[in-house]
Amino acid sequence: MRATTGWQADSAGAGLRRATLERRDLRPDDVAVRVDYCGVCHSDLHALHTLADGAPPLVPGHEFTGVVTEVGSAVTRFTAGDAVAVGNIVDSCGVCTMCRQGQENFCREFPTLTYGGVDRHDGSTTMGGYSREYIARDRFAHPLPATLDPAAAAPLLCAGVTVWEPLRSLGVGPGTRVAVAGLGGLGHLAVKIAVALGAETTVVSRSTDKADDARRLGAHGLVVSTDERQMADARDGFDVVVDTIAAPHDLGRYLGLVALDGTLSHLGHLGPVTVETIDLLIGRKSLSSGGSGGLASTAAMLDFCAEHDITADVEVLPSTRVNEALDRLERNDVRYRFVLDMSDLS
Amino acid sequence: MRATTGWQADSAGAGLRRATLERRDLRPDDVAVRVDYCGVCHSDLHALHTLADGAPPLVPGHEFTGVVTEVGSAVTRFTAGDAVAVGNIVDSCGVCTMCRQGQENFCREFPTLTYGGVDRHDGSTTMGGYSREYIARDRFAHPLPATLDPAAAAPLLCAGVTVWEPLRSLGVGPGTRVAVAGLGGLGHLAVKIAVALGAETTVVSRSTDKADDARRLGAHGLVVSTDERQMADARDGFDVVVDTIAAPHDLGRYLGLVALDGTLSHLGHLGPVTVETIDLLIGRKSLSSGGSGGLASTAAMLDFCAEHDITADVEVLPSTRVNEALDRLERNDVRYRFVLDMSDLS
Repeated sequence: MRATTGWQADSAGAGLRRATLERRDLRPDDVAVRVDYCGVCHSDLHALHTLADGAPPLVPGHEFTGVVTEVGSAVTRFTAGDAVAVGNIVDSCGVCTMCRQGQENFCREFPTLTYGGVDRHDGSTTMGGYSREYIARDRFAHPLPATLDPAAAAPLLCAGVTVWEPLRSLGVGPGTRVAVAGLGGLGHLAVKIAVALGAETTVVSRSTDKADDARRLGAHGLVVSTDERQMADARDGFDVVVDTIAAPHDLGRYLGLVALDGTLSHLGHLGPVTVETIDLLIGRKSLSSGGSGGLASTAAMLDFCAEHDITADVEVLPSTRVNEALDRLERNDVRYRFVLDMSDLS
Repeated sequence: MRATTGWQADSAGAGLRRATLERRDLRPDDVAVRVDYCGVCHSDLHALHTLADGAPPLVPGHEFTGVVTEVGSAVTRFTAGDAVAVGNIVDSCGVCTMCRQGQENFCREFPTLTYGGVDRHDGSTTMGGYSREYIARDRFAHPLPATLDPAAAAPLLCAGVTVWEPLRSLGVGPGTRVAVAGLGGLGHLAVKIAVALGAETTVVSRSTDKADDARRLGAHGLVVSTDERQMADARDGFDVVVDTIAAPHDLGRYLGLVALDGTLSHLGHLGPVTVETIDLLIGRKSLSSGGSGGLASTAAMLDFCAEHDITADVEVLPSTRVNEALDRLERNDVRYRFVLDMSDLS
């Protein structure tokens, strides 16, 4: 085994504390990554809040960038010194119907999550990117395009691909009317990517506080969701509504914005949701949900973002301030993604 | 006003009784239709069960065929003697975003329902096709293709277009894998139309009782929904699952059958439904709902059915046996649609 340093929670509600972590010795198809930057995702908060009694300590972090320091004997894709990025899955069965279609994120044996997952070989619990080193199967590391800032690119690996997949699978492009509800970590990337795909893009937000940001991100309009007049005017107006609101909310209000044959795509895991079938029926609307990406689409997203110079708007904090980052994320006090700088870990 | 005879319910739970009904004098754009055959739809049962105290008497029936007997002064599409068919809407505003897209069934001022609706001109409550004569705005009557049997064609006007719209809007054709859950009035037409569209079509049914019927209707396979092994084998197997089950049920089971990027389309109004977002997320699946059709797609459906010789499997009863038909429909004792023969009404 090899040792590294990271940030670990020992129980639900406890803060993260600096700890020495064990990493496995490299398997033939592993790469060792020096983690430079790791994004702070809403999922990390959720995992910390729901950490079960008696569960192994939790090391969050599933969107990170860094540099390869060592490769396993069978690795040909990478050599030491390569800039890489890792997202929220680090292994899958490779043979099920979903893996064969390039959707390792939907692996029927369940993909190995970057943290809190179970390693397919040794049964250990995976520990995430809030640490200075990560060992990953080479297939699940992505070359990081040289033009992308490694700190601002880190959130692309989870938030970026989470918005990319529905936008692509729903065929968003020139002529598509897209609304993005909620302007946070996911939402601001949804706006940037939808705009770069050529869509007419509107932000739906609770107030006008983010109007300037929406414009700066490239959005063509803003609808204030608490203004009934504006919501009525926007009715049936969007082919795709990307709903990035993390808290439970009435999906019917957002289905109302969807145009004939359009889709409301909710991103992130809301648990059970209730919809009135009449809200789907009238206008022949669809409801879908997204939350991650496969390897091929993650690579395509990184290429697209490099081509269009898209990264997240980030506030970079030294990793010693991880608990402050989590507290502020909980209060939505970030525009739009915290990224931890791991260089303060030995 | 003009008088006709029909079958009317005076209160919820009461049987239908023969009554004299008033029909309006023809407006310039009206046609008078002698109703020959009227299908008995699940919606009729629902309307009868939920008839409010003090509401006007209810005359059900919104899928019927007949012959034009008289036309208004401005009507050019029809002349007396033309065979026609009328579905579940008989008017709409014509100018809203939905009407302009040919989806009068989603009219933003609400379409005038064939029965229990409110006439846009005189405010009267519409009375349906369980009667010998109906007066309809000419745009909302469809020429009935001569090759279609008028009795067996009647259910196409509601059940037929209800399955047609999602199959078409979801792009079902050769190469599409379609499952039809529930083999009743809607389901048997979904099978016939999906097969005629060239899709590989499978019936999902609670037992093997309908295996012979499924085959006769053209289905290529049958999955028994109560057999966990069969359901597991069918997992992720269908691009489109058309769910025609009228009773409340767990949509998650049927979402499990949907393939990557596929859709579960529930037909008919279930009220509020709850789904686990994870059941949508894994496999990037969509949920939609259908329940009627616009004028253009109703016309296209009739042409398609004429071309492919598709009508409903019907049991024709004299209209005097309407209460028996409703009782048996309630028990699902029909393969697959009752049609009332109105020639016993004067």
